[in-house]
Amino acid sequence: MKSTINGIAASDGIAIAKAFRLEHPVLEAKIRNITDIEAEQARLDAALDASRRDLEEIRKRTAGEIGEEEAAIFSAHLLVLDDPELIGPVKEKIKGDGVNAEYALDETASGFITLFESMDNDYMKERAADIRDVTKRILSHLLGVTVPNPALIREEVIVVAEDLTPSDTVQLNPAWVKGFVTDIGGRTSHSAILARTLEIPAVVGIRSAMAEIADGDIVIVDGTTGEVIVRPDEQTLAGYTEKQQAFDLQRGELSRLAGEPSVSADGHRIEIAGNIGSPADAAKVLENGGEGVGLFRTEFLYMGRDSFPTEDEQYEAYRSVLEQMDGRPTIVRTLDIGGDKKLSYMQLPEEENPFLGIRAIRLCLEEEDMFRIQLRALLRASVHGKLKIMFPMIATVDEFRRAKAVLLDEKQKLTAAGTPVGDDFEVGMMVEIPAAALMADAFAKEVDFFSIGTNDLIQYTMAADRMNERLSYLYQPFSPAVLRLIRNVIDAAHRQGKMAGMCGEMAGDERAIPLLLGMGLDEFSMSASSILKARAKAAETSKADMENRIDEILSLASGEEVLEYLENIR
Amino acid sequence: MKSTINGIAASDGIAIAKAFRLEHPVLEAKIRNITDIEAEQARLDAALDASRRDLEEIRKRTAGEIGEEEAAIFSAHLLVLDDPELIGPVKEKIKGDGVNAEYALDETASGFITLFESMDNDYMKERAADIRDVTKRILSHLLGVTVPNPALIREEVIVVAEDLTPSDTVQLNPAWVKGFVTDIGGRTSHSAILARTLEIPAVVGIRSAMAEIADGDIVIVDGTTGEVIVRPDEQTLAGYTEKQQAFDLQRGELSRLAGEPSVSADGHRIEIAGNIGSPADAAKVLENGGEGVGLFRTEFLYMGRDSFPTEDEQYEAYRSVLEQMDGRPTIVRTLDIGGDKKLSYMQLPEEENPFLGIRAIRLCLEEEDMFRIQLRALLRASVHGKLKIMFPMIATVDEFRRAKAVLLDEKQKLTAAGTPVGDDFEVGMMVEIPAAALMADAFAKEVDFFSIGTNDLIQYTMAADRMNERLSYLYQPFSPAVLRLIRNVIDAAHRQGKMAGMCGEMAGDERAIPLLLGMGLDEFSMSASSILKARAKAAETSKADMENRIDEILSLASGEEVLEYLENIR
Repeated sequence: MKSTINGIAASDGIAIAKAFRLEHPVLEAKIRNITDIEAEQARLDAALDASRRDLEEIRKRTAGEIGEEEAAIFSAHLLVLDDPELIGPVKEKIKGDGVNAEYALDETASGFITLFESMDNDYMKERAADIRDVTKRILSHLLGVTVPNPALIREEVIVVAEDLTPSDTVQLNPAWVKGFVTDIGGRTSHSAILARTLEIPAVVGIRSAMAEIADGDIVIVDGTTGEVIVRPDEQTLAGYTEKQQAFDLQRGELSRLAGEPSVSADGHRIEIAGNIGSPADAAKVLENGGEGVGLFRTEFLYMGRDSFPTEDEQYEAYRSVLEQMDGRPTIVRTLDIGGDKKLSYMQLPEEENPFLGIRAIRLCLEEEDMFRIQLRALLRASVHGKLKIMFPMIATVDEFRRAKAVLLDEKQKLTAAGTPVGDDFEVGMMVEIPAAALMADAFAKEVDFFSIGTNDLIQYTMAADRMNERLSYLYQPFSPAVLRLIRNVIDAAHRQGKMAGMCGEMAGDERAIPLLLGMGLDEFSMSASSILKARAKAAETSKADMENRIDEILSLASGEEVLEYLENIR
Repeated sequence: MKSTINGIAASDGIAIAKAFRLEHPVLEAKIRNITDIEAEQARLDAALDASRRDLEEIRKRTAGEIGEEEAAIFSAHLLVLDDPELIGPVKEKIKGDGVNAEYALDETASGFITLFESMDNDYMKERAADIRDVTKRILSHLLGVTVPNPALIREEVIVVAEDLTPSDTVQLNPAWVKGFVTDIGGRTSHSAILARTLEIPAVVGIRSAMAEIADGDIVIVDGTTGEVIVRPDEQTLAGYTEKQQAFDLQRGELSRLAGEPSVSADGHRIEIAGNIGSPADAAKVLENGGEGVGLFRTEFLYMGRDSFPTEDEQYEAYRSVLEQMDGRPTIVRTLDIGGDKKLSYMQLPEEENPFLGIRAIRLCLEEEDMFRIQLRALLRASVHGKLKIMFPMIATVDEFRRAKAVLLDEKQKLTAAGTPVGDDFEVGMMVEIPAAALMADAFAKEVDFFSIGTNDLIQYTMAADRMNERLSYLYQPFSPAVLRLIRNVIDAAHRQGKMAGMCGEMAGDERAIPLLLGMGLDEFSMSASSILKARAKAAETSKADMENRIDEILSLASGEEVLEYLENIR
């Protein structure tokens, strides 16, 4: 009989297909006494080898079919697998306690998982999740139990699961997996984000999906409303088939905008670009009609590995993006780590307030050797396209000057050594600290371009941690305080004939686009999947009309009043 | 023979007197086996009682002679002494291990101290210091060793010590202790701050003072330069006696300003007020000629105790301050806890970035019952003087409106119940978040006054934790970004005919005073000891001249340039 269950809408669109229940077997690590210690340790080694083969295969396939950034998690898993601090104690326990490999592994791993989870630190919690995932895989080999392999699905299905592990998720092939529903998770969980990247409709946090849905049941997933209909009647099915067609039609119409320029209703030209995290993402930006890359986060090159990337590795990555972008402007942000973003191989002091700590350019200016390697790689790549180098977290003019001096010093050295370096690359900065936005006039004389990082700019302007859920009421992109800073940055840039862009979430927010257009923002950079919707929004907006409203909007007293005003224009 | 040693100048002025070495005995807690468990536990109880009598006596004397805020540390010590989580395990250890009380205490306390010190949390580190201090005191009673009692000094001395514990420091009677020098400590250590409050010259962080200075040696302490001269020759002694007289003369001249109004060289009247932490501090503000209280930090009422202060306790404290200030404007800031300031009896969630967390008004609006008690106490006290209620950490107009609505609701209830409430109290806000400074025009329509909190405003504007030493280069009060926000707040206030004050460190900075005067700041609030110097500085500054320079100063590119400009005016 038909039933409707509600969850959290995690990825837009409608999918209709048979249910495929993805169940993870219970892996029980019962204790047994062992006499042949060496044989038991060899059993462990064999299971480690088998797991390593699994992971290398999944890693490779993910990198090829989905992207390097998504594949990084398996590099992290491979590191866990080879971590002597995990495997050493397991072997010692087999020997010392005379117990079986399953039990020794489970006990040792549980200890680490409990320890890491108890730490009030997202990085360590992520490590706990990695260890849990890898331990399951090794255990399955030890116990001879098959773990589900969603990569083998060869018919159109809706995947139904308690939860999807990161390794499950990346194996979902969108050719066959039309949608998924899970009992746990939220809109920002790893699997929800991946669903949006793959453009698979998804509903998460349902609680009763595994209880109510049987293998083979017809399921409708409405990823826009969060509704899941199980065993629909004919009428419902017909209704949703129609909705699905309408959705696909709209997406199709948008896709016709892919080759078009970005122009407002009254003919004002802007640039709509994409944010990327790896060279593989550049293709998605182009598919969605992006006119450039407005933010290449280079952190991925440094993460999920056990040592710094070499200059050549970096050079190859930058070159790949520049070549793919084929002359389109490509903004590469220098390393933004520190604070809450950590590298396992780099010791950084714990800080009381990481978001107000030694991050990004602050760290790079302290660790100048590391910074110079990245700058050399960028300079060498600059001959392959239209490179714009961007420094993050600049607070003072002095910091920008120091960072630029290091860059020019490396340029001179490379040139002296006969290495070709482009001569029309630009040097700009993120505006994400209130001091930088307030001093935009002074900065505009020194930089080639600005890109406003709204995520951080909002949190500092409101003095509210953007990751702290209890303070979400203060995270207000439409606060006139934030808008006044944005206008100040754009005006200051234009007075010096410089470009002002934006690469925070706000640039892709359809409610914000008319406002930003009215303030004169030149470049909007966002996730690839938002580009066409943004272009459509710009095309229906009159810049001149919005421009005339800006003073009135910025004189409103609150973010709520601004949103209400914007609602009433439409 | 004469020798000169250098340390950190911690408190201005020159002192010349005989050395008094304050040495703490080594308290060795050697293990002994015990058979009569009950007798040993009784020995512990006796030592606890003796320690309690010590502490109550010191607490009382400190509250009377120095101030309630300084006495609070002994309330904290008394809580440690009665903490069943410390004393329980000690008694169990005596019984369980059959060991002596000294050993059981030392082992148990060491465990807690190591644990608390390892936490990356200033509050817990402070608890570790408290436990260390209390443990020493109990041990001294158990061992029958006399701890030095600086309160008994009855001749003029310079106290020389490795370090001064908080309990040592508060026992120093400035009638006899003319100065002090310590081998460890920095300018912001507890003892350095107290030395400035008591106006005793002090040099800290000397390293070799205990090694080089014998009891009875004549010592000169120059707390302005950080020099300490031991066994000076006649000529040196004569030179420093002259310097001392000049210093006292200058201080005397300043003290003549105590009864004068605060007026610039060209006749512009301002108000110079004092920041206080307890009712006892109000006397010091008046002695130093303060024209009001610009900031009463009410946190002290909540700290160093094990439950919330009652409405009556708070009422008495507010009334005492208002009565002492005798009609002078008195700004009382509502509770600013949360973030890094914690209460032992209030459970608050750990936050990743406490400075960007649930603090001050954010917490009070969540914990409305607690907030209402404070507001009722303030409203009842409002009949006793010129009360100005100030809300901290306001980011949005909505927050201010909500806080004010709660206040007016309580006012109405009190009035309905027949309790008298003043009808000319004012309601204002701290401006310490960039959003508030940027939106000052909107706020100025709603508030009666502003007080700019520069300490926080600077850290948020620069996105740099002000407690993080590695980022001290970014803590720039003279950054034009900060100055532009300050000007915006002052201008917005004046357009609505409201008062703009300042209660951060910057208000008492002699380099900043001409600048702030030029921008039109109405009220400057600072520590009592800075008031007269600020008044002298204002008296030699032409407001009109500075006003003409403001545009030029705010167009400079950096804090360094601003400071250089200000240097060159003189």
